[in-house]
Amino acid sequence: MIYSARIPEVENSILSDILKITEDPSVISFAGGLPASESFPVDAIAKACERVLSDNAAAALQYSATMGVAPLREWIAAYRSTPARTLHPDEVMIVSGSQQALDLLGKLFLDPGDGVIVERPTYLGAIEALALYQPNFYTVDSDVEGARPDLLTVDVLQKSKLMYLQPNFQNPTGLVMSAKRREEIASFMATQDNLYLVEDDPYGELWFHEAPPANISSLSERSILLGTFSKVLSPGLRLGYIIADKKIIRALEQVKQAVDLHTSTFGQLVALETLKSLSLQTHLGEVREFYRGRAQAMEESLRQYMGPNVRWNSPQGGMFIWLTLPEGRDTYAVLQKALDAKVAYVPGLLFYTDTPEQHTLRLSFVTVGEEKIRTGIQALAQIFTD
Amino acid sequence: MIYSARIPEVENSILSDILKITEDPSVISFAGGLPASESFPVDAIAKACERVLSDNAAAALQYSATMGVAPLREWIAAYRSTPARTLHPDEVMIVSGSQQALDLLGKLFLDPGDGVIVERPTYLGAIEALALYQPNFYTVDSDVEGARPDLLTVDVLQKSKLMYLQPNFQNPTGLVMSAKRREEIASFMATQDNLYLVEDDPYGELWFHEAPPANISSLSERSILLGTFSKVLSPGLRLGYIIADKKIIRALEQVKQAVDLHTSTFGQLVALETLKSLSLQTHLGEVREFYRGRAQAMEESLRQYMGPNVRWNSPQGGMFIWLTLPEGRDTYAVLQKALDAKVAYVPGLLFYTDTPEQHTLRLSFVTVGEEKIRTGIQALAQIFTD
Repeated sequence: MIYSARIPEVENSILSDILKITEDPSVISFAGGLPASESFPVDAIAKACERVLSDNAAAALQYSATMGVAPLREWIAAYRSTPARTLHPDEVMIVSGSQQALDLLGKLFLDPGDGVIVERPTYLGAIEALALYQPNFYTVDSDVEGARPDLLTVDVLQKSKLMYLQPNFQNPTGLVMSAKRREEIASFMATQDNLYLVEDDPYGELWFHEAPPANISSLSERSILLGTFSKVLSPGLRLGYIIADKKIIRALEQVKQAVDLHTSTFGQLVALETLKSLSLQTHLGEVREFYRGRAQAMEESLRQYMGPNVRWNSPQGGMFIWLTLPEGRDTYAVLQKALDAKVAYVPGLLFYTDTPEQHTLRLSFVTVGEEKIRTGIQALAQIFTD
Repeated sequence: MIYSARIPEVENSILSDILKITEDPSVISFAGGLPASESFPVDAIAKACERVLSDNAAAALQYSATMGVAPLREWIAAYRSTPARTLHPDEVMIVSGSQQALDLLGKLFLDPGDGVIVERPTYLGAIEALALYQPNFYTVDSDVEGARPDLLTVDVLQKSKLMYLQPNFQNPTGLVMSAKRREEIASFMATQDNLYLVEDDPYGELWFHEAPPANISSLSERSILLGTFSKVLSPGLRLGYIIADKKIIRALEQVKQAVDLHTSTFGQLVALETLKSLSLQTHLGEVREFYRGRAQAMEESLRQYMGPNVRWNSPQGGMFIWLTLPEGRDTYAVLQKALDAKVAYVPGLLFYTDTPEQHTLRLSFVTVGEEKIRTGIQALAQIFTD
């Protein structure tokens, strides 16, 4: 083996196979978490490019600080401040999408064998990023209000450095953690001296009826909040951010300097100009309305076509519906049938760090239009009841 | 220690201290390798932004393939093909600046204790990126034609996975490897079955009088070529590329997916449009002319002000002059004096993985204008002869 021991000998090709197939425009894809391109603020971005290059080209095209450009960090600090916690720009670092945040955190914290606590199921991209640091994954049980770290054993807690949670419209389940549980977790974290909470929040702004409760990180100093502009502006810009105490941000800065020097200066300044010119709340209102419509369409189709033994949670925001078929079903085994019928989804097994529940799957309702949603769900229902 | 063992306990703050001081516009900085902003093709980039957003916004702002967008990979494959080696786009991966290439290669190849062979001195950013994978660094001796891997011991070769070289206008020395040595190294690599050559080539296009000889990678299959658009278009876009055989590119793709999904789609498409509209050879001709003028100005000042005991190689391209003071001098010890006099440079000790030669330093001639070059060199000469 010429590669490092951290590289899996057999690559996990399920996801790349699915993604390749979904490049075929005739395939109805419920697989990717691709934001609808109709929701991108193209005009505002075009004007922002013009303005940045006419006012500030020499700086916009030059190397810049590893932390990110100061005015964008200021914007984020203001945007993410809450009554409970006012953020300083030095508590904010810009990264190349929140996926990079996961890589930097792995690099900063994890030695092989260190523990990482995750939900069951959890976000596939977090598993992929952190697995390359050869940790041991442990899972935390959940009840209807959310994750229950108080149930973790002392042994697991002593071995673990990071606990990774998505309290808002979790990927893949779509679930929201209750306000009470967030407070309990903040209190729990205050008892820890080895463990940090990584609170990943890509979907919090995408609520349909009411905003989710305040982030845990606004209540806990032992937390690292990950945010992104992928869902509210554009994923193609690859812009996200990390919010943490200054000491951690400073350590992350050293790591990021070695990893890629800094995130695109031009991209950062274009995003900032876009955010300044756009009425963000109006834009977000439109995005929410748009996604709510698609979520409803998918739920209607699910109710119409799926048998009574198929269960899901009605989505209150985000991008995903998590489907549970009757036990004994295997969503990976029938994936090829679905792909042959030109419909794609992600089988549930990819979202587990331990024994997977094979009868689950994730559907994204944001990428394709309502008519295709209907056609696709009808086709899947047939395959699942065959 | 809450952080991973790979994180140095004491951060190396010399460079960040220098960079912070050079943010003061009254400081004459010979420290950074910042391309002159006068050389950025601003109009072409502005038109490219317009075109990308009017023709192709939905794709430009969306997630895209981890490998990079196909037409840019095609462009690079054509641009980097030579009579000796025609490149396929699948041998090209786009990265977020060639600094990221170093991180991805470390992640793919290196376990703690694996050997990495570097020149003496070598590029600081490569040391920083690879050091986080906890390798053992070994150095390769050089003669006037360049590195001599044939002098490495069998023991070092058996332990080592990567040999990192910059054959064109090396950072920090500015030296160019001869054509003969490149062929010898290609032949040498053909005898290796554990070692890969990493040929980093950020400066090859920036020659003053004649183009450097063909890349080693055009002659050797055991090589990985790193390129960048930072010096020919703009560093702020953070765009570089890796050229290697398809098997390695495919493995790097898995790593990059975990690390940041992909490099900015928008940035890639803007760079492609710029490259298509710009006459690149004309643009490069202007950049070369511009840098040649500054190199000459610096050399003239060095000849005028530095004593006869100060040595350097006349730069034939690139961005740097490597200065050697008399033995016993310590360029780190007097750095503060220079900074107090508002002149910055990088002390040589940062470019060594073993015992440094303390009497060396790196000067960049590209960032400041000719008058400041003169003033700055005069001030340094006084400090070095004090």
